[in-house]
Formats: sequence, structure tokens, C-alpha cells
Amino acid sequence: MKILSLEVIKKALSIPKVLKAIEDGFIAYSQGQTVIPPVASLSFKDPPGDCHIKYGYLKKGKYYVVKVASGFYENPKLGLSSNNGLMLLFDKQTGRCVSILLDEGYLTDIRTAAAGYVAAKLLAPKNITNIGIVGTGAQAYYQLKFLREATKCRKVMVWGRDIEKAKKLSMHHDLKEWEIQPIKDLVELASKSNLIITTTASTQPIIFADFIMPGTHITAVGADDTHKQELDENIFVKADRVVVDSKSQCALFGDASHAIKKGSINFEKLVELGDVLVDPSLGRTSEEQITVCDLTGIAIQDLQIAECVFSSIS
Amino acid sequence: MKILSLEVIKKALSIPKVLKAIEDGFIAYSQGQTVIPPVASLSFKDPPGDCHIKYGYLKKGKYYVVKVASGFYENPKLGLSSNNGLMLLFDKQTGRCVSILLDEGYLTDIRTAAAGYVAAKLLAPKNITNIGIVGTGAQAYYQLKFLREATKCRKVMVWGRDIEKAKKLSMHHDLKEWEIQPIKDLVELASKSNLIITTTASTQPIIFADFIMPGTHITAVGADDTHKQELDENIFVKADRVVVDSKSQCALFGDASHAIKKGSINFEKLVELGDVLVDPSLGRTSEEQITVCDLTGIAIQDLQIAECVFSSIS
Repeated sequence: MKILSLEVIKKALSIPKVLKAIEDGFIAYSQGQTVIPPVASLSFKDPPGDCHIKYGYLKKGKYYVVKVASGFYENPKLGLSSNNGLMLLFDKQTGRCVSILLDEGYLTDIRTAAAGYVAAKLLAPKNITNIGIVGTGAQAYYQLKFLREATKCRKVMVWGRDIEKAKKLSMHHDLKEWEIQPIKDLVELASKSNLIITTTASTQPIIFADFIMPGTHITAVGADDTHKQELDENIFVKADRVVVDSKSQCALFGDASHAIKKGSINFEKLVELGDVLVDPSLGRTSEEQITVCDLTGIAIQDLQIAECVFSSIS
Repeated sequence: MKILSLEVIKKALSIPKVLKAIEDGFIAYSQGQTVIPPVASLSFKDPPGDCHIKYGYLKKGKYYVVKVASGFYENPKLGLSSNNGLMLLFDKQTGRCVSILLDEGYLTDIRTAAAGYVAAKLLAPKNITNIGIVGTGAQAYYQLKFLREATKCRKVMVWGRDIEKAKKLSMHHDLKEWEIQPIKDLVELASKSNLIITTTASTQPIIFADFIMPGTHITAVGADDTHKQELDENIFVKADRVVVDSKSQCALFGDASHAIKKGSINFEKLVELGDVLVDPSLGRTSEEQITVCDLTGIAIQDLQIAECVFSSIS
């Protein structure tokens, strides 16, 4: 059994391979080639936090994955990051653990950003004039980094509840090629950007349908539990296409779930990213359309990235 | 974070502390002091196997546990044990993993045997004349080892589908103080033993109500999934007391679940082990009664044993 440290994992990770593996994973998932039960979770009150366990396998694959991820949002007060986690990879022939990936949540960040890249590449309008990043955490950073290959646009607005954090992100040494404007007004960001990525842990809608201009694509990655929500339900009503990573999971939690549970849209309006990858006509078909992609994070992404790392080590 | 090997875990484990912790755990569980969601599981077809993820915490505790256990029943053909697993202990204040216990399923075996000990101590008749062990695997061995402190009876019959395995167990160097008779006839075992422990992975009933004499206690530990069953439903009808580790879990899977799902007994007949520990009158009240204890294994046991090991290391 191989126990891999974050340092080893970072060295082993090939981003082009991950992007390919994540796309393949979404397609396999939507084609019914995976076994992925509902997410197992724990929530905590004092201090507030949550733990999500995602697990599953490819029917024709060699391994199964169990990923444990935590979010404790008061951690930064203690000088710790909010998110953490690890992945376990098991041999599907024997149940033996073949690797423990002590990635501290890094691989979850990367596979989420990779999904954001796939969504933007497939669904954003061709002519992106401004990118709006909502949130200033690790995921805001990684989404932007991964968008580099999806668009030539380098104009970005970043919004955070704390403008200082938005300023800090705008000056990140690794994001120098982007022209980043920290912004206090979320309405301005939403109404001036035609590619918007929301990455917050908000528990109530912060982006509303009225803000959005025609031809905009929104990817929402923040809401990964029943009590979290970034997008108002009417955005899903207004959208010409609602794409999700997993229809069954997005009916249970995430942004689209609120629109479905309130009856604002039908479950049938949801299209899976894996299906759009195979048939792009299920996604954006004109520059004027509004498209939304709700990413709640599925175990196939965890399996694919864990296998990417493990296969490059062994 | 401490990564503990099986060797270190075995050295650190204090059985008296584990027994106390398991009893405390059952009581806390039955008194609503825990958060333990339903078990998460995966099943596999080729080769057949399953993976169970048990997770949860004590509301007033310091840690939460995630335990991953696998059972791949064709492993022995490859020279590997059927069961395997590991436990992860996390800080409930931050979500940080504080320890990975690479116990290879050993701690699951021990906490299950400890529950068997608790059940026998509480529910078996005072005068045990013969112990019947059904099954010849690791759990058969551990149940017997742990019964040492629960009874003075040293007469044992062991039944296995393969009599050679029963003979092998009977000659185990660590069980010399027991007078063990390997037996081919399960009816004989069941009708001559007034303490019976079933430890098989059977998928259909192998012990029937007609076999059982008055005053018998049966502990069933083998059925840990919906498709597994060792005890015929009529045993639950005939039993004066039906004790379970978890009412909610035993309604979903395990031996008692079959009796409930078929309507042979009502859910209300179930009494939790933690409640019997606090009030023994909920258990056996006469030597003539038939009692059954269905143990499906709950995350509080995993949490308690993982904490026992971790606290003795740190």
C-alpha cells in the first residue's frame, strides 16, 4: 500500500491527464458505467462544519474510491484552511487498500476546477468579454487558473464579502497574466460578466436572475450540501440550458435542487455534463443563450483523479 | 497525524479498556448522544464483495470516525483474508485527520467480539452448559476468546460447512483451555447449546426455531447486509427478548430485519443493547427464556475502539 503525501501528489499530477480523465469520467457516469451511491455526510454544530464521503467505482475499472472531505468554516481563525480531506483507493478484486492519498483537500480542489474548465469550454459563449469570479477562496483561485486553457479572455472581476480578500487574490503571483479587478458590487460583476463562476459557501442566493445579461454562462461550484445555495431559483427558470454534473445528485442538493424542490423548474430540464460532452448540441446552441452549470462534485471525479495520481506513481 | 500499523495497534490495545468503551458506546448510542447516519455501502459482482462505510460521532466527543471495511469472500483462494479495512479518526473541531489506523479489519473483529461479550454477559442464562459456535472464521475465534470472561463454561461445539476448518479452529493454540468439539450437524449443535453465536456470511437461514431449547441465548453477528441472514424469522417470533445493537439499523439489515420486513415480529419487539445495559430487566428475566441478540455493528463501536487505540498512543 502506498501512502502519498501532498508533496508527492503535487509532483505526480499531470493537469492535461486530469482534464482528460475528468471528461472521460463524466461521460462514463452519464452512460451508466459507474456505481455511485448517494453521498454520505455528517454535519457539526459547534463549531459548524461538515464532512462528505463520496465513494464509488467504474463497473469496468480496477479500483474503487472512498473520499473523505471536510469543511470547517471557522478554521481560518485558527490559521487552518477550511477544507481538508484524503482519498483512499481500493483494489476492486480484493478490497485491499492500494493507496492513501493524503492530499489535504488539494485533489478535490483540482478535480472541481477541472470540472469548471470542462463546463466553461463546453457552455460559455465564444466571445467572453469579462469573467466574474464570486468568492475569494482556494476554489476561486483554481477555477481561474484552469480557465486559462478554456478562453483567451483575461479580464476578470473578483467579488468577496471581504474586499481585502478579493484584492489579495487579484495580486496572486500565479495569476499575473490576468487583469483582475476586485469589486464590491456583486450586481456590477454579474451584469458585466458573461462567464460567471460562483465558489462560495453561501447558504442563501447571492446571484439573481435580473443581474444576468443574455449570452451569459454561470458555473456554480459552491453549493455542495442541502443548506447551501448561491443562485436564485429564477436563474434556472431564465436559463435556456441547465447542465449538471449528476441529475440524481443535483435533485438532492446544490443550487438546482432548490429550483426543483420549489417547483420552479422540472427535473427534466436538467442535462448532464457527460451527455453534453458526447453531444454538444445539448448545451449552448447560440451566443445569446443563458446557460447554467451546477457542479456538486461526484465520486467519479475523485476516482479519476486518484487513479491519475496512483498510476503515475506506480 | 499518526499513521498506525497493525503491529502498533495490537500492542496499544487494552482489552479491558475496549470492553468498557464498547459498553459506554452502546449506552451513549441508545441515549441519543451520538450522530450516526445509515451505513454507506458498495457491492461488487465479479468477484463478489462488499464495502461498508460506517461513520459518526459522540455529540460531546472530540473526534469523528470513518471506518471502511471490505469483505471479498473469494480472497482466501488468493491466500488473502476475506475481510479488511481501516479506520480514520478526525478532530471534530477542525475536520483534520488525526490518525489513520491501518488495522486491516482487526479492530472491527475486536469490537464485534467485544459486543458479543457484552451480549453474552447480559443475556445468556447463568448456567451455560454448552457453547455453540457457528462458523470457523476469524470472528468465530474472537467470539470464543472474548467469551472467556463472560462464562466459566469451557465446553464448545464448532460447526462449519467445511468440517476441516472446524477441526483446525478446535486445535488453535490460543484456545487450549476450551474443550472444543468440531461438529458436522448444525441441528445437534443448536439443540445442545444454550449459548449460540453465529458468525457466518450466510445468505439464507441456517438456524431454525425448532432447533432451539428453552433457556437458550443466541447472538448473531454474521449478517451485516440486506442479503445476509443466519437466523430463521421464527426464532424472533419464539424469542422472549429480541435485543439489537441498533433498532434503526436492524430494521434495515441483519437477521432481525427479515423478521420485521415479513411482518413476523413488530419493530416494537426490538430492545437496544445500550438500554439493557442500563436496565437489565429489559433483557433476560428467567433461566427458561429464549433471548436473541442481533449485532449488525454500529459506528459508535468503531469510534470507541479507534479512540481507545489513539489515546493510548498519544
